[in-house]
Amino acid sequence: MSEFDGILPHGARIGILGGGQLGRFLAMAAADLGFSCHVYCPEPDSPAFAVAAEQSCAAYDDEAALARFASGVDVVTYEFENVPARTAAFLDKHVYVRPGVKALHVSQDRLVEKNFINECGIAVAPFRAVDNAEDLQAALGELGAPAILKTRRFGYDGKGQVFVSSQREAEQALEKLGGRDCILEKVIDFDYEISAIIACGVNGAQVSYDPGRNIHKNHILDETFIPSGVAPELERKAVQTGKKIAAALSYTGILSVEMFVCADAPRIIVNEIAPRVHNSGHWTLDGAYASQFEQHIRAIAGWPLRSGGRHSNAVMKNLIGDEVDTLDEYVANPQCGVHLYGKTEARPGRKMGHITVLSPLDIGDEV
Amino acid sequence: MSEFDGILPHGARIGILGGGQLGRFLAMAAADLGFSCHVYCPEPDSPAFAVAAEQSCAAYDDEAALARFASGVDVVTYEFENVPARTAAFLDKHVYVRPGVKALHVSQDRLVEKNFINECGIAVAPFRAVDNAEDLQAALGELGAPAILKTRRFGYDGKGQVFVSSQREAEQALEKLGGRDCILEKVIDFDYEISAIIACGVNGAQVSYDPGRNIHKNHILDETFIPSGVAPELERKAVQTGKKIAAALSYTGILSVEMFVCADAPRIIVNEIAPRVHNSGHWTLDGAYASQFEQHIRAIAGWPLRSGGRHSNAVMKNLIGDEVDTLDEYVANPQCGVHLYGKTEARPGRKMGHITVLSPLDIGDEV
Repeated sequence: MSEFDGILPHGARIGILGGGQLGRFLAMAAADLGFSCHVYCPEPDSPAFAVAAEQSCAAYDDEAALARFASGVDVVTYEFENVPARTAAFLDKHVYVRPGVKALHVSQDRLVEKNFINECGIAVAPFRAVDNAEDLQAALGELGAPAILKTRRFGYDGKGQVFVSSQREAEQALEKLGGRDCILEKVIDFDYEISAIIACGVNGAQVSYDPGRNIHKNHILDETFIPSGVAPELERKAVQTGKKIAAALSYTGILSVEMFVCADAPRIIVNEIAPRVHNSGHWTLDGAYASQFEQHIRAIAGWPLRSGGRHSNAVMKNLIGDEVDTLDEYVANPQCGVHLYGKTEARPGRKMGHITVLSPLDIGDEV
Repeated sequence: MSEFDGILPHGARIGILGGGQLGRFLAMAAADLGFSCHVYCPEPDSPAFAVAAEQSCAAYDDEAALARFASGVDVVTYEFENVPARTAAFLDKHVYVRPGVKALHVSQDRLVEKNFINECGIAVAPFRAVDNAEDLQAALGELGAPAILKTRRFGYDGKGQVFVSSQREAEQALEKLGGRDCILEKVIDFDYEISAIIACGVNGAQVSYDPGRNIHKNHILDETFIPSGVAPELERKAVQTGKKIAAALSYTGILSVEMFVCADAPRIIVNEIAPRVHNSGHWTLDGAYASQFEQHIRAIAGWPLRSGGRHSNAVMKNLIGDEVDTLDEYVANPQCGVHLYGKTEARPGRKMGHITVLSPLDIGDEV
């Protein structure tokens, strides 16, 4: 269904596609606002199942299970952008899907995404579509080495991308990534990566958080710092950029936009967008008056948004794999919020939880 | 079991007796710290069931169900002090029960409670035990009218108590309340009612929140104001009083202490204690760095406590019965946290949710 024309009453049921930690926080935020949740996820031990009133453990292409799910909920949202297009289209026929199918379509394919952002008049890293060896040679000639070859679809946390510094490396990478449906992207020499987290209401209202500065380790987000340390005018531009993209998508919910900041130029280049709550917004659980999860639920329910203000400075750190064994030091810090996702096995690269160390606002900060 | 000798690892299971809104918030706080919850409650539509990994819908005297419950959890806590003594004793044989059986024993009986507080060297309203008409006449003679006749057990939200201004009224009240197991309490001419919310770790650590000032309507808490407006030295005394009672109980978890403040004398008189999270501490969900629910879970899990500090001033208002119909005005306020308990039927006197309006700290406040 394409129009959302009302305010979801408390007691209504919200469907969540995906049962990871994002779905878990969404389900708890929804419960706190009086909604009950039905989490749909193919993985039996999904973290979100433990905090939801109802669970469907079924494949995303199981139309019978999807139909049961859709018939029992008032609105559907998702914790990840790789919801299969057919799944989204099927659900969209039966129930409100928020954020909409358009946001999924744009964010699922790096080529579509970058073209869309360019059409908004917003800079992305120079790129070329690559569907064969000839495309690759031409692209590398035009963009120069080093560059990054990325699959158009299903990449996350550094998966589906290869850094290449020569024609030979590029050819090997293309073969590894399947030989087609890729893009080659120029490497940007940036000073900071920051995230804009924008909340968008059904009535067009937009609320922003202060952008956070992200540090990655092994291609996975490691830490987010608030404030970012980026010059205020660039922070403002980052927020404006995020809002512009959200408006162009007629977006409802939390939109997350990762950007590179080149401090000398100065300029902002959009890296990618995520039509969902985002790891780089986890600090809002502890440092902001209202979390990104609450804002997302309010938005998809048609409720007014809360303030995006914050009461503290914050450093969010992910606990990845066996980093969760260092938990005690964070637990012992009375200024530290601890969030664990209920995952039993600490596999390498797996996000097990996160912590947020709070500190007072800098004097003179306008928040 | 009477000794708690370790730190509960994340992933452990916490049992919660009682499935109302307090159990619901406890279950969400526990999930956020990586624990899973098993909620035990006789009511089929219990609000806490929707956010717990496991549910037992059984009577509190169903020993088979209690045994199953106890065998699957690592620690048991409760959302209400009227856990039947036999239930608590049965569970205590099989699993850690926190806060302990002693706190239940003291707080379940007004006579035991008042004697205990007196023995701590802390003032309570003058009272007399009343088990028959002769006791009543003597008590009213000694304390004077007006006075309040209360059942010793199972009173809450004004239930089980009658205001009496004459011997005749007192006799009628005693008959209504069962003719025995009552106390007569002198009416205190107080200026404020405030609550001290004290978090107590297993290692004896104590963390306090700023006391809130409570306003009741129809004997049910209506609003809590933070800061209380009470003189700082009386606030300090209120916190010290709460800590002293907690220490005397060898307490673990959140202890809530309601007190009357007589501004002229000045003095503090303890009204009653609750060995649990408390409605007057709900503002901590929005206005403090760590909520009373998180502190309670940390305490019963043997974890260190968070700071009891707050980042905002707060006014908490309960939404009772059809007051929930006025929700829109609060939802539209971007500085207002909204919490709904997922109850479908708005019966008179039923707590449906609460809201908290935040405002900046007063200049010069030390928090």
